[in-house]
Amino acid sequence: MNDYAESPIIIDYQQRLEKLKARMRRQKIDAMLISRPENRRYLSGYKAPDHGINETSGLIFVSTRGKARLLTDFRYQLQGQQETSLDVVLYSRGIPALLNELISEHQVKRFSFESHYTLHSFSLKLTELAEKHKFQLVPLTDVVEKLRIIKSEPEIELMKRSTALNESVFQFIHERLTPEMSEIETASAIESRMRQVGADGPSFNSIVASGENGALPHAVPTDKVIGKNSAVTIDMGLVVNGYCSDMTRNIVVGEADKDYLRIHRIVRKAQLAGIAAVKPGVLMKDVDRAARTIIADSGNGKYFGHSLGHGVGLAVHEAPTVSFKSRQKLKPGMVITIEPGIYIPGWGGIRLENMVVVTDDGCEVLNSNTTFLDI
Amino acid sequence: MNDYAESPIIIDYQQRLEKLKARMRRQKIDAMLISRPENRRYLSGYKAPDHGINETSGLIFVSTRGKARLLTDFRYQLQGQQETSLDVVLYSRGIPALLNELISEHQVKRFSFESHYTLHSFSLKLTELAEKHKFQLVPLTDVVEKLRIIKSEPEIELMKRSTALNESVFQFIHERLTPEMSEIETASAIESRMRQVGADGPSFNSIVASGENGALPHAVPTDKVIGKNSAVTIDMGLVVNGYCSDMTRNIVVGEADKDYLRIHRIVRKAQLAGIAAVKPGVLMKDVDRAARTIIADSGNGKYFGHSLGHGVGLAVHEAPTVSFKSRQKLKPGMVITIEPGIYIPGWGGIRLENMVVVTDDGCEVLNSNTTFLDI
Repeated sequence: MNDYAESPIIIDYQQRLEKLKARMRRQKIDAMLISRPENRRYLSGYKAPDHGINETSGLIFVSTRGKARLLTDFRYQLQGQQETSLDVVLYSRGIPALLNELISEHQVKRFSFESHYTLHSFSLKLTELAEKHKFQLVPLTDVVEKLRIIKSEPEIELMKRSTALNESVFQFIHERLTPEMSEIETASAIESRMRQVGADGPSFNSIVASGENGALPHAVPTDKVIGKNSAVTIDMGLVVNGYCSDMTRNIVVGEADKDYLRIHRIVRKAQLAGIAAVKPGVLMKDVDRAARTIIADSGNGKYFGHSLGHGVGLAVHEAPTVSFKSRQKLKPGMVITIEPGIYIPGWGGIRLENMVVVTDDGCEVLNSNTTFLDI
Repeated sequence: MNDYAESPIIIDYQQRLEKLKARMRRQKIDAMLISRPENRRYLSGYKAPDHGINETSGLIFVSTRGKARLLTDFRYQLQGQQETSLDVVLYSRGIPALLNELISEHQVKRFSFESHYTLHSFSLKLTELAEKHKFQLVPLTDVVEKLRIIKSEPEIELMKRSTALNESVFQFIHERLTPEMSEIETASAIESRMRQVGADGPSFNSIVASGENGALPHAVPTDKVIGKNSAVTIDMGLVVNGYCSDMTRNIVVGEADKDYLRIHRIVRKAQLAGIAAVKPGVLMKDVDRAARTIIADSGNGKYFGHSLGHGVGLAVHEAPTVSFKSRQKLKPGMVITIEPGIYIPGWGGIRLENMVVVTDDGCEVLNSNTTFLDI
């Protein structure tokens, strides 16, 4: 079912680990605990998700003085051994007891953990260990995230595949959409089709918002029937080998009225202006402004309340944020969405979302079907 | 589609909040922040999930000196107002800034938060506030969880409905299962049907494990085709008005062989022994032992590696744990699973899981179709 099985993409996990270790050495960190699932996967290929933050499926112990280890429990032992080249160590007597041993063995003086993905209750256990072993505890944020922000060629290739597959699912559903279907049925059909064509799964809960519901940017599909000549916003994405796609399209089941076409053209114009502004060195806020100005000039400024876009990779929302406030600069290899929208309470909404990768002198749009031209 | 819409079940959120406040007063806590989604829902009816622990959809600020408030952002304002009777307050300038105001206003001297559902990074912000306002910060665990462990009549009724609907989905899929279907297709059909019949969704990712895969208690469905005369373990649950069901059945697509029937009978006998042991005052470990002894006596002790069961409610896994170690006592109103299994590497596995509610003098099985008798 999955065409992609034939051309495997090789990812160099060892290189990623070495980059992390180099960062750790600069901050004089001897060892670090990686808990966030996307970061574990990025560094090792370990695919297991967490079933909520209270049910970890493992932690990576990265030491500047030895080989990285995957700490997990018996349920994930085999998976860890199959998916990674790390040494897999079980915490059969609990995580603190195992860390106790590793910290002694590696003579850790400064130990770090992911403050943005560690529970307060677990941090208390780390504090106890620090007191016992007289090491310094250094909470850090966004260490692996900063590596993840620049995508390599294999990652960009995976996101192109993810996007192409996502577009094929959209096309399939679009051809079968009828006015009698409810939003929930449509969302459910989208997600079934994603699995059928070999995606790992949806990258987020698909949004299907018809008529007035389109005015909510994060609408949850309801049992509302779409109805004839009704507009529908579909925001959907899927996962291929861990990498996410994210795309929004607007369609009319029947005939679009003049207002709808007018608003659609404004949003598309804003999107094109945003895409045209993307190149290395440009500030995020200036990309946002390029698109926002078009919408403001059309008199719809107050109907575009969210940021223009966000990074995509192993997570469907990740750094950078393309917001009107951000002074962060675009760099080659960043993959971001450009998704302006106009949301009018009582009327509905239109959002157009494509993904682009920043190149050396501009950007490349990952979507092949860049808008949806039958309206 | 949902038969249950006709007989609404009234839940007294105010009473739950008062119980929490009584506990807070006993520990001299002036105010507390509730962050875990199930706990928010339990106390207020607020249904929004979190999209990961880094993307909260709100916090409940409970003060012994005033009305509880739902703190959230503009995306969830309407939902909060519709679903709860709390005052909805937006943190447009960030959560710490809003807490800053509330803590002054309520003259908080001792402030508590959920240590098991608060990120370390956020706890640092609370520590800053504590230093500024000179209040004491009291991390707590399992405060609302301890209220949730005893179910009220309306909650038990909802779980009966959830279980009945889950059984109807199982029946539907069972009638349509063919040897040509893959595990993933079957799981996908189960989850589509759940939505079709009006469930809020599955309560966890459905397990469909055929043949040897059945030897993994937490098997993830693969694209393996089930095949003729093959055994399949199906572990599935759904959500009705927030309340979860959880059930495991084993079927054979075709004809079961003698070994399979023999193992199935042992597991069923162990399950019945476990259920027979359930009554108020009995230790969890003694319930576990009642079932485990049957499996051990059959010579399969080493093939039953997990605990006998767990609590179910707004979360599919919650307190209590029915393990061989737990000295916790059963109390009327607890809802637990009884799910012994035998997992033989290279052969496969059988697990039988029903839910029971502890009554004044024993227990009531929530499942109507208590085993699956066609084999």
